[in-house]
Amino acid sequence: MTPRWDHLLTNATLATFTGDAPYGLIEHGAIAMHEGRIAWVGPQHALQGEANALASHVEDLGGAVVTPGLVDCHTHLVFGGNRAHEFDMRLNGATYEEIARAGGGIVSTVKATRDASEDELFAQALPRAQALLADGVTTLEIKSGYGLDLETERRMLRVARRLGKALGITVRATFLGLHALPPEYRHDRDGYVALMCDEVLPALAGEGLVDAVDAFCENIGFTPEETRRVFDRATQLGLPVKLHAEQLSDLDGAALVARYRGLSADHLEYLSDSGIRAMAQAGTVAVLLPGAFYALRETKLPPMTSLREHGVAMAVATDCNPGTSPLLSLRLAAGMACTLFRLTPEEALRGITVNAARALGLSDRGTLEVGQRADLAVWNVKQPAELCYWIGGNHALRKTFLSGAAPSPAA
Amino acid sequence: MTPRWDHLLTNATLATFTGDAPYGLIEHGAIAMHEGRIAWVGPQHALQGEANALASHVEDLGGAVVTPGLVDCHTHLVFGGNRAHEFDMRLNGATYEEIARAGGGIVSTVKATRDASEDELFAQALPRAQALLADGVTTLEIKSGYGLDLETERRMLRVARRLGKALGITVRATFLGLHALPPEYRHDRDGYVALMCDEVLPALAGEGLVDAVDAFCENIGFTPEETRRVFDRATQLGLPVKLHAEQLSDLDGAALVARYRGLSADHLEYLSDSGIRAMAQAGTVAVLLPGAFYALRETKLPPMTSLREHGVAMAVATDCNPGTSPLLSLRLAAGMACTLFRLTPEEALRGITVNAARALGLSDRGTLEVGQRADLAVWNVKQPAELCYWIGGNHALRKTFLSGAAPSPAA
Ligand SMILES: [Zn+2]
Ligand SMILES: [Zn+2]
Repeated sequence: MTPRWDHLLTNATLATFTGDAPYGLIEHGAIAMHEGRIAWVGPQHALQGEANALASHVEDLGGAVVTPGLVDCHTHLVFGGNRAHEFDMRLNGATYEEIARAGGGIVSTVKATRDASEDELFAQALPRAQALLADGVTTLEIKSGYGLDLETERRMLRVARRLGKALGITVRATFLGLHALPPEYRHDRDGYVALMCDEVLPALAGEGLVDAVDAFCENIGFTPEETRRVFDRATQLGLPVKLHAEQLSDLDGAALVARYRGLSADHLEYLSDSGIRAMAQAGTVAVLLPGAFYALRETKLPPMTSLREHGVAMAVATDCNPGTSPLLSLRLAAGMACTLFRLTPEEALRGITVNAARALGLSDRGTLEVGQRADLAVWNVKQPAELCYWIGGNHALRKTFLSGAAPSPAA
Repeated sequence: MTPRWDHLLTNATLATFTGDAPYGLIEHGAIAMHEGRIAWVGPQHALQGEANALASHVEDLGGAVVTPGLVDCHTHLVFGGNRAHEFDMRLNGATYEEIARAGGGIVSTVKATRDASEDELFAQALPRAQALLADGVTTLEIKSGYGLDLETERRMLRVARRLGKALGITVRATFLGLHALPPEYRHDRDGYVALMCDEVLPALAGEGLVDAVDAFCENIGFTPEETRRVFDRATQLGLPVKLHAEQLSDLDGAALVARYRGLSADHLEYLSDSGIRAMAQAGTVAVLLPGAFYALRETKLPPMTSLREHGVAMAVATDCNPGTSPLLSLRLAAGMACTLFRLTPEEALRGITVNAARALGLSDRGTLEVGQRADLAVWNVKQPAELCYWIGGNHALRKTFLSGAAPSPAA
C-alpha cells in the first residue's frame, strides 16, 4: 500500500494556535505533510494505523515543540550600509546636530542605498535574512523606502523578490515611498508626494513588485492628508494598505488606515481609544514593534489592555532597520513583547504566527491546520513559552519546513 | 626556509584593546599565531617579508574585525529544568505567592538540579554553552549554587569542568554555596553557613573543583557577616573571591569584597560612592549584568559615571541563569550595556574581553598582544561598534580560534 503522506512528525508538542486551549496545544501530537500542505494534525493516538505505513518519511521529535513557521510582518531589511558609527557617536555623547552634520540619520541610509547596486543590496541583505531564518522565520515582509526615487525604490523591491527566491521563502514586498522626504525635495513636499503617488507607485505596481502600500504618518513624516493620497492610489491599483501610526504622537493614523480596511497599523504607542475602536471594527491588526521601543528607550507603552478588551488582533515584528531597530531575531522580538509590553507568551507567539500572517493578508499560514501551507518550525524546547523566555542564543531552532520540505539544517 | 608562524591573518581590522586609540584599533592589520600564542600583531605594511613565506597558513580576512575571544565572566549556566512556566504564569497575572505555591522560584531550580544526574546536567547545559560559543565566547565562568548540598554542588562544578574539556575552552568554576538557603535549613541559617564554609567548600577545593568563591550578599540572600565567613575560608584555602553585591539594596558588599582584594563585585545597581572608592583602590572589577536589569525591568542604573571617574574597570556578563537572566548571547549583553546602561560600544567590548578576563584573574587573554593566548574571534563586520549595534541574530561571528586552532566553523 502506498503511504498517504510525504512526511509525518510524531511525538510532537504542537502549538497549533487554533481552538481555545492555551497555544492551541496538542501534547503527544502528530502532524502530517503532503504535497506542501498540512494533511493531518491531532493527538498521536488518533492516527489510524501504524505511523510507518502512513508516510514515506516518519520522524520522532522526542516531544519537541512544533509551531507554524514564524512570520515577520514588518521589516526594512533591504538597505545600504548601517548606522553603527552613529550608534557609537551617540553613546559617546554626540548631539543630534553633530550626528546630522556628520551625515547621519536616515539621509545616510538613503545615500548608501542609492549608491549600492542591486547585487550589493542583495549581498548585504542576505545574511540578515538568513539570521531571521535561523531563528524560525519562513515568511518575511520587506518594505522599500530608502530609495525615495523610482530607480532605487524599484531596486529595493527587486532585491526583496530575489531574497524570497534565493531562500525559498515567501517575501511580501511593501511600497513605502512616503517614508521620508529626500533632500532634493526638501522644499517641495507636494511634488514628492505627487511623484510617489502618480508615477513611482503605479510604475512599480505595474511591474508586479508591490504587494501592499505603507506610509510613515507622523509629525516628522507625512501628514494624514498626504497618507490619504497614497492610500487612494493604492486602492485604485487594488493594493491593500498598512500604516506606521501613532509611534511618536497621535495623528489618528490608526483610524485612517482602518477606514481603508487596512491590513495593519504598526507601532501604536500613542494609539487612542477611538483608534482602537476603528481598528476593531475594520479588523485591522495591531503590529507591535518592541525592538524600536527598546532601542529608542521609549517609556510610553502601547495600550495593550484596551487592545485586548476590544479584541484587536496583535502581531509582533522585528521592524528590522538600520536606524531604530537593528534587530535580527523575531523570537527575541516576541520575548521583548513579553518583557517590555507585558504580552503573555501565548499572545506574543500568536503575534509572530497567525496574527502576523493576517497583518500580511495571508490566511494560508500561521496555524497548524489541515490545508494550511506546511511551513513549520521545530524547536529544541518542550514548552512554547520557552521561545519567549530564552533571550538570544542560537540553540532554540532545530529545523524548519518550507512547504513541507526541510530546506537545510538550521544554521 | 621554514615559516616562522603557524597561522597568519591578514587584511584584518584588529580591535586589540591595548594602547590609547579607540578599541586599540589597527586597520589593515595582521596577526600571527604560533604554538597557541599570539606571535605578532601590527599594521600589515610592517610585516617583514611576504605573508605567504611567513606562516604555514595565511588567511586574508577581507577587512573583517578581529577581537580577542569573548570572556563571559559571570554565569550560572549549569542548572536543572528551566523557569519558562513561571515566566508564563507571571505574565498571565500570577502573584509571587501563587508562583511560590506552584513550586516556582529558585527552590524549583534547586529541586530540579538535585534531581538531575551529572550526565543530565551536562546534556542540559551543553547547548547553552554552545549558544554562547556561537556568538564568540572562548572563556566562560560557571558558578555552582543550585545544589546547596555537598553532592549537588560537586556535581555542578564537575559539569563545569566537563564543559570546558568537551568544548576545548577555558571554564572557570566558582563556588557559590551562599546563593540561597535550602528548604531543609530554613530554620538554621547558621548551620547552613557552617556546612558550606567548614565542610563543602574545603572538600570541593580539595578536589580541585574551585577556582574562586562567590556569595549572594543581599537582604534576601546572605548578610555581610555570613559573607565574611565564606571569604575568610576562601582566603585560607588560597582562593580569590568575588561577590553579588548591591543588586537590590546597598549592604556595602562592594567595600567588603574590596577589603579581600576581590576579583570583582557584580550587579552594583545600588553601589555607593564609598563602595566605588574601595573598589578603585583594591583594583576590584565592576561586573555589570544588564540581562538581569532588563528581565527584571529594573529602573535604577549602576553608577557608571562615577565608576568611570574613579577608574574602576567595568566588565559585562550574561549572568545566564534560569530565574532572572535566561540570556544566551554575550554580544547581546554588551549591546544591552550600551542601550540600557549607556556604556559606549568601546567600554562594552572592553567589558566582554580584557576587563572580563581581569574579573576572572586571567591576564593571559582579553587583548591582542604578543604572548597572549591565541583565543580570537573573527567577525562578519567591518567596525567593532557593530558587535553592540546589531540586536540578536546569528550573522555576526565568522569563526573563533582557541589557542590558535579553529575549533570548527561557527554554528
Ligand atoms: Zn517600520
Ligand atoms: Zn549571578
